[in-house]
Amino acid sequence: MSDRTELSELGEFGLIDHLTKDLKLTQSTTIKGVGDDAAVIDRGDHYELITTDMLVEGVHFDMSYTPLKHLGYKAVSVNLSDICAMNGTPTQITVSIAVSSRFPVEAMDELYSGITQACERYQVDLVGGDTTSSLTGLIISVTAIGRVEKSEVAYRSGANEHDLICVSGDLGGAYIGLQILEREKEVWKENPEVQPDLEGFDYVLERILKPEPRTDVIQELRKHSIRPTSMIDISDGLGSEILHLCKHSECGARIYDEKIPIDAATATQCQDFNLEPSVCALNGGEDYELLFTISQEDFEKISKVKQVSVIGHITDKASGAAIVYPQGEEIQIKAQGWKSF
Amino acid sequence: MSDRTELSELGEFGLIDHLTKDLKLTQSTTIKGVGDDAAVIDRGDHYELITTDMLVEGVHFDMSYTPLKHLGYKAVSVNLSDICAMNGTPTQITVSIAVSSRFPVEAMDELYSGITQACERYQVDLVGGDTTSSLTGLIISVTAIGRVEKSEVAYRSGANEHDLICVSGDLGGAYIGLQILEREKEVWKENPEVQPDLEGFDYVLERILKPEPRTDVIQELRKHSIRPTSMIDISDGLGSEILHLCKHSECGARIYDEKIPIDAATATQCQDFNLEPSVCALNGGEDYELLFTISQEDFEKISKVKQVSVIGHITDKASGAAIVYPQGEEIQIKAQGWKSF
Repeated sequence: MSDRTELSELGEFGLIDHLTKDLKLTQSTTIKGVGDDAAVIDRGDHYELITTDMLVEGVHFDMSYTPLKHLGYKAVSVNLSDICAMNGTPTQITVSIAVSSRFPVEAMDELYSGITQACERYQVDLVGGDTTSSLTGLIISVTAIGRVEKSEVAYRSGANEHDLICVSGDLGGAYIGLQILEREKEVWKENPEVQPDLEGFDYVLERILKPEPRTDVIQELRKHSIRPTSMIDISDGLGSEILHLCKHSECGARIYDEKIPIDAATATQCQDFNLEPSVCALNGGEDYELLFTISQEDFEKISKVKQVSVIGHITDKASGAAIVYPQGEEIQIKAQGWKSF
Repeated sequence: MSDRTELSELGEFGLIDHLTKDLKLTQSTTIKGVGDDAAVIDRGDHYELITTDMLVEGVHFDMSYTPLKHLGYKAVSVNLSDICAMNGTPTQITVSIAVSSRFPVEAMDELYSGITQACERYQVDLVGGDTTSSLTGLIISVTAIGRVEKSEVAYRSGANEHDLICVSGDLGGAYIGLQILEREKEVWKENPEVQPDLEGFDYVLERILKPEPRTDVIQELRKHSIRPTSMIDISDGLGSEILHLCKHSECGARIYDEKIPIDAATATQCQDFNLEPSVCALNGGEDYELLFTISQEDFEKISKVKQVSVIGHITDKASGAAIVYPQGEEIQIKAQGWKSF
């Protein structure tokens, strides 16, 4: 009899739950540990936020179509996005890299130029890290820290019935961008002399290759005195993220299909792939927009904030999370996020 | 003409210097960025310390003789050691893991039991992380944070001429432990039916497989009101670390060969390998002891601290760093630390 349980049986979220279920916290300064976009540590007059993400070649990125400069930029962006998702401001990062000797110093320079560009764009200091060799590919591990006023922190768990559900920017673009890159890679593999045809796909390619953390949205919310009741960033698709919010806030949700913001370029390219844009938004990942809830009282205020759409509202737990279609049909949302294993 | 520079031409320290030489810091809270055992961030009434290390299978550890539980413990230890090296107290960690599907859930449980054991032993909270798949081996990236009173922080750069050079515990054991593991691995490869002969090697094997951060030494120093003028942890061998201190403090050093603390078990096993114990201490790595300097005025106080040896003194920069042998002969120290590329 074998006592071997495959990682794929648990999946990424299941494995994290399994490994962290018995964690004990002993430090009085630990306000929030595992289970949100970032951990929260009490620093006296403010909270510190800390989050970490690892990007692995062949799993999270494909070197055949990922420019190293973009990769460095993205590795920083996705971590800063997690700080934003706590309604915080990123301040410092550390970057650890494992790299095989097939990469020359010039490749590391490219990677770091992207890292540095993101740091400068978001006024974040690179304060430490580790550089080591790897036997095969490239692995990048970034830790971001940030700060937030104690009264301003937003958890996944704070949504209340009747709260409005909001999303920043537009969704689905990163997923379509990835499909285009994969398609051109297949063409190239069959005929290496054909140059990839990426003309006219700038927007969706930028969405997948060079996402931006929404520090601007956090600033706008502050400017308009809007405190989100809950927040999460969209790394795994709207469907997966709304389920996280509902689980942590013990509530249900109704999302109106026609309210989901889709860019015109995304919609056009969805047609080429015979995909419904809202399906890309729900199940595609890596948009790194912010999904958050606000009190109904803040409806007037949020309507003045550019780049934010109200897409639904929070319901009671028993009604579950569902998409509402224009004819009134409701379909329950099932998690179809990123499968890492 | 090719513009390819191999990573091995720069080496680990050279690559880090190259990649970080133009970093700009813009956050007023960043007190110390890259270049010490940990970064230092101003948190109002105290400093936060932050450090990160990545362990890569096949580079930093060999799965054929590294129990996963020990590996998890060590991944935490080495990071806590960096917090100690700033004269600080570790408080929280994050742990990111990339793992291939050849590992079952039970292997991850073993790894996490070691991580958890180290957290409990040192009262550190595991507050976050990332778990993802890898195409080949196992990669562990740990970030540790800690705190230190502003008046207590110890940098690599604070050593002054005539300061006493001190080291905690004993050195060279981890290196000899590693030699024994490598020797038994070779025996096993030639004849897989022979059981590894590890009897009587407990101490040196524990030194390499399960090092402990010296939080106890930090507490002792505080108890005796000793503020180190400079400090670093010994991850790459005494020789390499004393050169770091001398470089950052712009000074020289004299280390007395017969003062270097060597455990009896280490000395015995050195004989088997025809190695000089002090050479193992100088050039072997991974002892994770603390190397620090104190003012001569603190000599009385330090002599009351258990587990600390005074091994030399700081000199002027022009005289360089050297080992002094019993007959008075001096040999300049050259860096022979860990070569990661």
